[in-house]
Amino acid sequence: MKNVYVLSAAMSKYGKSPLSARELALEASRKAIEKAGITPSDVQGGFVANAFSLSEKQGHLGPIVMSGLGIPDVPASTIESACSSGASAIREAWINILAGIYDCMLVVGVERVSQLDTITATTYFSFGSDYVFEGACGASFPGLYGSIARAHMTKYGTREEELASVAVKNHDNALKNPNAHLHKKITIDDVMKSPVVASPLKLYDACPFSDGAAAAIICSEEFLKRLNGGKPEGVIKILASGRAGGTGALHQRPDLTTLKAAVLAGREAFKMASLTPKDIDFAEVHDCFTIAELVALEDLGFFPRGEAAKATLEGRTTLKGEIPINPSGGLKAKGHPVGATGVGQVVEVYEQLNHKAGERQVSDARIALTHNVGATGGSCGVHIFSSFD
Amino acid sequence: MKNVYVLSAAMSKYGKSPLSARELALEASRKAIEKAGITPSDVQGGFVANAFSLSEKQGHLGPIVMSGLGIPDVPASTIESACSSGASAIREAWINILAGIYDCMLVVGVERVSQLDTITATTYFSFGSDYVFEGACGASFPGLYGSIARAHMTKYGTREEELASVAVKNHDNALKNPNAHLHKKITIDDVMKSPVVASPLKLYDACPFSDGAAAAIICSEEFLKRLNGGKPEGVIKILASGRAGGTGALHQRPDLTTLKAAVLAGREAFKMASLTPKDIDFAEVHDCFTIAELVALEDLGFFPRGEAAKATLEGRTTLKGEIPINPSGGLKAKGHPVGATGVGQVVEVYEQLNHKAGERQVSDARIALTHNVGATGGSCGVHIFSSFD
Repeated sequence: MKNVYVLSAAMSKYGKSPLSARELALEASRKAIEKAGITPSDVQGGFVANAFSLSEKQGHLGPIVMSGLGIPDVPASTIESACSSGASAIREAWINILAGIYDCMLVVGVERVSQLDTITATTYFSFGSDYVFEGACGASFPGLYGSIARAHMTKYGTREEELASVAVKNHDNALKNPNAHLHKKITIDDVMKSPVVASPLKLYDACPFSDGAAAAIICSEEFLKRLNGGKPEGVIKILASGRAGGTGALHQRPDLTTLKAAVLAGREAFKMASLTPKDIDFAEVHDCFTIAELVALEDLGFFPRGEAAKATLEGRTTLKGEIPINPSGGLKAKGHPVGATGVGQVVEVYEQLNHKAGERQVSDARIALTHNVGATGGSCGVHIFSSFD
Repeated sequence: MKNVYVLSAAMSKYGKSPLSARELALEASRKAIEKAGITPSDVQGGFVANAFSLSEKQGHLGPIVMSGLGIPDVPASTIESACSSGASAIREAWINILAGIYDCMLVVGVERVSQLDTITATTYFSFGSDYVFEGACGASFPGLYGSIARAHMTKYGTREEELASVAVKNHDNALKNPNAHLHKKITIDDVMKSPVVASPLKLYDACPFSDGAAAAIICSEEFLKRLNGGKPEGVIKILASGRAGGTGALHQRPDLTTLKAAVLAGREAFKMASLTPKDIDFAEVHDCFTIAELVALEDLGFFPRGEAAKATLEGRTTLKGEIPINPSGGLKAKGHPVGATGVGQVVEVYEQLNHKAGERQVSDARIALTHNVGATGGSCGVHIFSSFD
């Protein structure tokens, strides 16, 4: 299999933004192009990861972004897999490079939802679930992930304080990330006392609605060779990509305590990279709710079933722990601009593997994993990256 | 470059449908799987081409479709490039097979818009243009294509009767297509007397709002070898794929009488196939308005600039003409369910190259081209296909 690289990755600040999706996408794209040391005319194709731009009255974002970059002839499609749109777009760029179609592609993920009030935004998000059986019946994502949390508590004895410890850790990490949406130190007590959203999940168990964009330049070995003698500053390697689907609706699953799509995608990625969870120095996982991080850690094999909660409470997943999880702050505190999220995870990997993550740097980071889930596991993309050497 | 094949292609009837997008997509997918002589479990990955499913409160169509087919583990993303979503999805499946990621993929394009009234549907469609500069200013697609028509009339002396002759031909072809939305014989006089929508375009210059779905099974040579000794019934070959972008908005273009994305995509496809327009036996082109077909014929090189209108009026693009254009009835009369359209073009190619198109059969059809435009040319995908032998 050919080598494929992330030449650069960059993002806007996540949070409430006055900018439109197109402006956010252009900001992140321009930063990534500049950081790569290339010009827009080097980009031969692109993907835009986005889920809800119709709410802003703009579809067909590909030509909008490419026109804004001054390269309107360059084709770009939008890819949507709900909250895992970003991983899907990274994967399709990797496949385009593997197939030899292009040598240099731009992937930009973007979402703007702050034009919607909270109820409308929650409704839009629920379009990512099986709306007929879930959203339309009042089961929006807090309720669905609440069911997953309750099932996990019942099966493994997971406690609400353990869930809360995920939020505390990710808020701590986000305090060290200038691009994070939430900069607020919280305690387990704060989480426990926050308003119940969908029992057992409380407000501080949930990620915020964020605006934001993240972009990456994905390229071939041939393209690299043209830049700085084949080893341009910052470049990292894509070791593997795994992807799988899951049932749209929760009621179609025999077990709520695992997302099969994540298990399958993780297995595919580890096999492709010839690695095991023990080889991973840190991971960015999809923690839209605190329970989601625990399920991710078990689905990916970082901890045995039923043991991720205790491990998190014990601090084994902090920046200085045995396997740092979500050093960026995760969806929980870095924020979750839906289409951007999976690409934003790659931005964190890029910064960490280049040892430029400042106060949140994971020491000796060489191999990293990203895990990006669509809805409640209707789809999942897992990627593994390494330093260039 | 590896050989890639269309193992089968099938569609729902186009028109007003009581079915939801998911039901339409499943109908077309099941037909394509059955026609291919495979089972759902042979499908390893998929793409759903769709633009407006959020208007039906359902995103993340990939897992919905795969769950409905009983193969929820199989990953599928939605691809959106406005009205060229279908061609984009076919292209990405071709690329996935080329890269060796999968051996057998399902591509299904689908749209349901009849839950929207005409004004709302027109507004949704305008989200495919550059909404800030066009839709929001009242320039919906009839107005934008009206501008293109006016420019073409001014530059080349194209006449309204010549535009009308495109509609007459495509309605004639659709009369022979049981899956077409419109089954109504019309005359040039009927078109000329129909209500003006956006001068010089009249109601009968425009395609209808259609619901519908179309699906194709795309596979590798290795997969074919497992079926019927390597030559399963009906299989056709993808000779080439071209794709390019264009400016989102019309005001950014020096010339309105050509869609640069189509010129570039066509050139790429012809070069890849080592063919010229003279080698094509028939073409399905993107005739969302009558003017669009004329521009397509000139952009693709079937006729010199300014000569497609006269050629059409003279009958040179009819079923018995020198280069039959839109034997299916085209978007104009077969219908235009946005996400389905580019995949539906492949259904027509599949039937024609298998000499199973009944009364609308193009004699001796061996090589065919599809041309699928997003919005006013923000993107364009061109594919060339041949019979198996």
